[in-house]
Parts: sequence; structure tokens; C-alpha cells
Amino acid sequence: MSSHSDALALVADDMQQVDLKMQATGEVFAPLAGAINLLLASGGKRLRPALALLVSRLYPQAELERVISLAAAVEMLHSATLVHDDVIDGSLLRRGQATLNASWSQGATILAGDFVFARAAFFAAETDNIRVMKIFSQTLMTIVEGELRQLYALRHWSQPRDAYYQRIYGKTAALFAAATEAAAVLGHAPEEQIDLLRDYGYNVGMAFQIMDDILDFVGDPGKVGKPVGGDLRQGAVTLPVFHYLQMHPEALQIMQTSGNGHDSGNLLGQLISDIAQSPAIDATRREAEQFIEAAKACLAPWPPGQHRQALLDLADYVVARSL
Amino acid sequence: MSSHSDALALVADDMQQVDLKMQATGEVFAPLAGAINLLLASGGKRLRPALALLVSRLYPQAELERVISLAAAVEMLHSATLVHDDVIDGSLLRRGQATLNASWSQGATILAGDFVFARAAFFAAETDNIRVMKIFSQTLMTIVEGELRQLYALRHWSQPRDAYYQRIYGKTAALFAAATEAAAVLGHAPEEQIDLLRDYGYNVGMAFQIMDDILDFVGDPGKVGKPVGGDLRQGAVTLPVFHYLQMHPEALQIMQTSGNGHDSGNLLGQLISDIAQSPAIDATRREAEQFIEAAKACLAPWPPGQHRQALLDLADYVVARSL
Repeated sequence: MSSHSDALALVADDMQQVDLKMQATGEVFAPLAGAINLLLASGGKRLRPALALLVSRLYPQAELERVISLAAAVEMLHSATLVHDDVIDGSLLRRGQATLNASWSQGATILAGDFVFARAAFFAAETDNIRVMKIFSQTLMTIVEGELRQLYALRHWSQPRDAYYQRIYGKTAALFAAATEAAAVLGHAPEEQIDLLRDYGYNVGMAFQIMDDILDFVGDPGKVGKPVGGDLRQGAVTLPVFHYLQMHPEALQIMQTSGNGHDSGNLLGQLISDIAQSPAIDATRREAEQFIEAAKACLAPWPPGQHRQALLDLADYVVARSL
Repeated sequence: MSSHSDALALVADDMQQVDLKMQATGEVFAPLAGAINLLLASGGKRLRPALALLVSRLYPQAELERVISLAAAVEMLHSATLVHDDVIDGSLLRRGQATLNASWSQGATILAGDFVFARAAFFAAETDNIRVMKIFSQTLMTIVEGELRQLYALRHWSQPRDAYYQRIYGKTAALFAAATEAAAVLGHAPEEQIDLLRDYGYNVGMAFQIMDDILDFVGDPGKVGKPVGGDLRQGAVTLPVFHYLQMHPEALQIMQTSGNGHDSGNLLGQLISDIAQSPAIDATRREAEQFIEAAKACLAPWPPGQHRQALLDLADYVVARSL
């Protein structure tokens, strides 16, 4: 994936500034600063801030300092949701590393997540742009509402597919869309370009979550950092499941009887393996590819150039990663 | 306390608009909207938004719509911290009513709190004032950090009194100060008046928390909505305890041996009762009164008028309530 690395290399210097900004300093209560810095060091692809940085490069008039603040706000917001997700799931591992949840009390972890939300809001305010602040707070509401919808939808084995798209928009695509939209706003882009760049982010985000949901079935557990089929075991009905159920309606009963956590006969384990080896995976991937095609089409009005090319390459990377 | 009711009556119409703004409408995911509206209906004194509304009345040039947004942001932020506090404490009652925590799963309650934070940030953005947004996000960091410090300080029976003032600034006074400061900012007040009004809010907030900590010992459990001495039982060292320890250093050992939750001989229950009947309560109240005197002194430069009078009356109410 050299083109993906090339794309990130274009904004590597800016990303260092983003990382520096996100680091908690001596001003922060020491145990909290330690936790935040551990969280940041545990990595992640920094895809959301990279998209914001690259979009802003389409507009030379964007003030770098404000774009750095936006990129930091987006990544901190993403990190905050992960901290609370891990509390809610009781996850002790994330990206193969111990979660904050694993070493801190639950109460402290909830508050640490709140603090990271607050830092995200503070960085968003540092963009000095009211419209960006509104995008940001609206997105935070959308994300949290998406996660609540997801909680409520657990173990609803028979549900409309639209509910899935709505959930992944909320939990993932909304923040991608906010990152690219807000970057365009900071670039003083014309409204129709802001719309296109928001759509680009939206489509990349939808594809990203669909690929995540595929990787939950077919990914290398070592790389993904969680056991295969974890979503279905937790009762989450994702796109591969919808496609599989369309081909094998009889599987619904297995889920209904075994998907409640008491799967003595390992029927669910067999089903997960069946889904992973079925054409449902390819059908799902084709949907992700369609979102990526739509994302790339949003960039059609821009003339060729290295930043436009980097945005195209990152879109391709999202469907090609880790398969 | 008719002067207190008179003070609130001055802004009753505005407060109705604040309440209306805070209500979740049909756009919000239905179970979440229900939870938010229940949370709002469970009352609370709306003291923080009242202070913001009253301060803004000192400045006829303040735009009412923005002040309403600020007041809603402040109250929502306060509500969000309560939701997470109740998860962290495992509290099933608040103000004598069932908490969200009591009926929802823990995960859903954490997310509901996050959503209320997000709504608060959204209302803050609706002030269309970058400085207010920065005050707001900074305050959110301060509050959360204060709560984390409090968690870390639990059952540290021997600690400096300064740590107590730092904690109550974080958990309570910071938001009072932010409410009055931001209202002055929206009123386009001169900087020295913004500083004075922030100090007024700070001092009222410090006194408010000190009175809360007194009421935990001597309040009517029915009115306070939680059992007497709950703070000490949870390991929280509050100002009455500092004063009592100064008079009775030997009590430290009772806390060290009985304050870990295994108090078979009810020694802690006896200590709570001893503190409640001791001069430590009056000594603590005198400190609250000093903060209130300081708050009122901040208003000295303003000429007599009904809104200034209302701010003075609300300050007096804070130390007079429910004793």
C-alpha cells in the first residue's frame, strides 16, 4: 500500500503537530495525563485527522493552526468514544493493547472519557470558527445517538437493513463527514465544494465501517485485535449478516436460539465460520466499493494534483486494507 | 425565602424558554428523548441558568436568544455530570427520584450522559460566541478533572485542606463562575466587570458546595434525597470533617479503621452523628458565609437595581437554604 503511505506522508509534518497538540502536559492531573498519553500512543491510523489535513490542502488560504486544531478535535472525539465504548463493552483489549478500562476503575474510565470529550471540544473551539463548532457538537450528538441505537438494536435478529446504514452513519461516517466538511469550511471553500467534500467523507466513512464489519468475520484476529465474529457474539447484526440471511433465511433461527450468550453447542461459532466463507463477504465488500466509488466521484470537479490524488488513494486504501 | 423566589420570578419567563429549549423533541431517538425529559422534569433549582440570566440583565445590549442558549448549555452540562456521577456512584436515587441509572443499563446511561454533554456543547455553540465556547469547553475539562481528583482522594483521610477547595472549585464553583462570566461576555461587558461577575459566580459556587457538604451531615434526608453522612461513608473528606479533625485529631483513627466500608461496630455512624452535633458545622458555615460576603462585594460597583438585588438575594439564599 505504498500509495496510502504516500498520501499520509504528504501531511506527516502537520500530523506531528496534531500529535503534539493532543499530548496531555504537566498542567493536567498527572494520572489523567498518563492515561491520555497511553491512549494516544496505542496508535490508531489517524485516518480522520489525515482526511481533514488533506482536504484543507486543497485550499491554500486555510490557516494551518486552525486546521491542526480541527484535526486534533476530530481525533480526540474519536478517542473519547472508544474509551466509553470499551467501558460499555467491558473490553480489556483494543488494537491488541490493554484498554484504560483494564487498569482503571470504571468510574475513573468514564471520567477520563468525559475529559477527552472536553479536550476535543476545546480544540474545536480553538478553530475560532462558530460553524465548525456547530458541526462538531452536532456530530457528537449524532455519534452518541448512533451508539445508543446500536445498543438498542442488539439481538434484534430480524430488523430492516436501513437501520444498519443509519447506525453506521451515526457511529462512524458522521465523524468522517464532519472532518472533511469542517476542513473545507476552514478553507473558506464555496458551499457546493463544502457539500462535495462532506459527501466524500461520508462515503469513505460508510465504506470504512462496512470493511470493519467484514474484518470482524475474516480479519486476522492478531491484527484486528479482537476475536473473530465478536460482533455477532455480542448480538450486533452487521452487513455480512444481512447478506448471509438473504441467502440462508434458516440461519435466523440459529441466531435466535444461540445468540443470547448461552451457545452450548457452538452453533454460533459454526455460523460465524459459515458466514466468513460465504459469498456474503464478497457481496458486502461490493457495497463498500460502491461507497468508495461514490467518494471518488465527489472529487471529480477538482483538477489533478497531489492532494486530490492522496484523497483518492486513501479512499482506495479503506477497502483494500488488511484483507 | 420570599426574596429568593422574587429573584427567580424576575427571570421566570426567560427560564421557561430555557426549559423549552432543553426539552428533547421528536427528532431525538425516542428512548433517549424520554430519558432526557424525565431528567429535566426531576427538577433541580435551575440556580446556574438563573445566575446567567440575571447577570445578562445587567446589560440591556445582551441578545436574549444567545443568553437563553447559554443558560440551557450551563444547565445541560450540569445535568450531564449528574448522569455520569450517578453511574459512577451506582446511585439509584437523586433528588428523591429514581435516577436514569436505576432503570437503564449502565452502557445506555453512559451514552445518555454523553448525549447530554453533546447537547450542552451544541447550545453553547448557539451563543455564536467563540469566547463563550472556549469558557464552556475549558470549564468542562475543569469539572471532569475535579471529579477525577475527588475519586482519587476518596479514603485519603489525612490530606491537606487546600485539596478540598481545589476539588469543590472543579466540581461546582467552576460552572457557577463560567455561567456568570459567559453571561457578562454576551452582555459585551468591560473586562473588569467580566472579572468581577466571574468572581461573584465563583464565590457563590464555593459557598453552594460547602453548604451541600454541610447538608450531607445535618440536612433532612427526605429533602436532601440521600442518607445522612453519605459523603463520609463513601470516603469523601469534606470541610466539616476537616474542622472536626482539627478539634478532635483522635477521630482520624476511627476513619482509618472504619471508613473502608466494613464498619461492624457502627463507629462511623456515631462519628457522623458527632460531627453533625459539633461546632465543626458552625465553623464550616462561617466559611460558606465568607464566600457569600466575597460574592456580594463583587457587586459593589453596580448601582442599586432589581437585578443586582436579585443577585445579592440569590447569594444569601445559598447559605440560608434548607437549614
